Amino acid sequence: MSEGIRVAVSTVIFSLRSRPDAPDALMLPLVRRTRGPFLNHWAVPGGWLREDEGLDDAAARTLDETTGLSASYLEQLYAFGEVDRSPTRVVSIAYWALLRQDLVDAQLSTRPAPENVAWFDVDDLPTLAFDHDRIIAYALWRLRNKVAYSRIAAGLLPDEFTLSELREVYEAVLGRRLDPSNFRRLIEGSEALVPTESFRTGKHRPARLFRYNAEVALAETGPPT
Amino acid sequence: MSEGIRVAVSTVIFSLRSRPDAPDALMLPLVRRTRGPFLNHWAVPGGWLREDEGLDDAAARTLDETTGLSASYLEQLYAFGEVDRSPTRVVSIAYWALLRQDLVDAQLSTRPAPENVAWFDVDDLPTLAFDHDRIIAYALWRLRNKVAYSRIAAGLLPDEFTLSELREVYEAVLGRRLDPSNFRRLIEGSEALVPTESFRTGKHRPARLFRYNAEVALAETGPPT
Repeated sequence: MSEGIRVAVSTVIFSLRSRPDAPDALMLPLVRRTRGPFLNHWAVPGGWLREDEGLDDAAARTLDETTGLSASYLEQLYAFGEVDRSPTRVVSIAYWALLRQDLVDAQLSTRPAPENVAWFDVDDLPTLAFDHDRIIAYALWRLRNKVAYSRIAAGLLPDEFTLSELREVYEAVLGRRLDPSNFRRLIEGSEALVPTESFRTGKHRPARLFRYNAEVALAETGPPT
Repeated sequence: MSEGIRVAVSTVIFSLRSRPDAPDALMLPLVRRTRGPFLNHWAVPGGWLREDEGLDDAAARTLDETTGLSASYLEQLYAFGEVDRSPTRVVSIAYWALLRQDLVDAQLSTRPAPENVAWFDVDDLPTLAFDHDRIIAYALWRLRNKVAYSRIAAGLLPDEFTLSELREVYEAVLGRRLDPSNFRRLIEGSEALVPTESFRTGKHRPARLFRYNAEVALAETGPPT
């Protein structure tokens, strides 16, 4: 039987953060542990599953409790259950979500994050507790995989955006530069985007704003209920 | 904490079974329960996670113990953890796999399946225990989704096959007829298949045998290890 096994949840939140004089960076919040094991190590936000709550609810609750953040939709990523991933036997159900920077800022303006929370560039992570490096690597793999064939980038953008802004999201997620002309041809050839009649003006020449075609689902929504 | 929560695994195995005078059918093995809750109801093969085994190992072990079957690779599907999915609190990590009919037959020829195992057409399932109808529905959704954009059908076919045989797999998986000419054009336009110099002969005119391009992964392989 499985009486000695405990169940936890953890959640990887990706956001795109602007940086002065540098391209936007894909970042995620981590929580510095205030107890053992792995005291003072950084960990993915999470906590124990309660007997009276479902997995999705537990992910949302522990994310809120540890970081002050909430996402409109958390997608289940994977159940991590290696025997030696923790000193005691813990199966952790990992979730992930995208959260727009303006929504992060709005949430933290009403209730500041706990002191032991910090945001890290996905390419510059600290030493992590447990197998959380593996959880983050898999969440990143899933995100990169999805951005290539779905409308997932919409979760990181405002409702309307220029093609350059969209390309910068792809570049931050994929971790490499893309050729602007090729990118424009690829996107314009798909039916994912709808042009608007608005333009972004500024120091460059005006650029048309686009929005995603709302008829296409943003992410896999899990099993039918 | 989560001391009152137990962890189980369950596995959905899909195979394509030939039927006399009918198209091949997509089928899966179910196990009739010999104890409560849901005594005598049909359930997806599975069992309790042991403290000393990982999730993948538990899925393989319980599949073997309940059905006598083994698959070369089990893919994790989803963690099901609704509070009311069982009279006691059970989180079940579901797996799924494809198993070729000839491998099923070979395995069962050396060690027959337990008496309480039977194969069912996915379109004609009995009343199921727990939320196992939901687990099967999600596995089927994942399979149908994958067959549309990956080489997943290879898991149901012998190494070499005709385009008609491949189309019949798609038809069984998708549950609908496909236009032969359109299907041929679609497949020949992709680089998924490699033609061989062999032909299937029989009552129809000879048909060229194809194999899948081995350079393409068969299925998502889970997080990096």
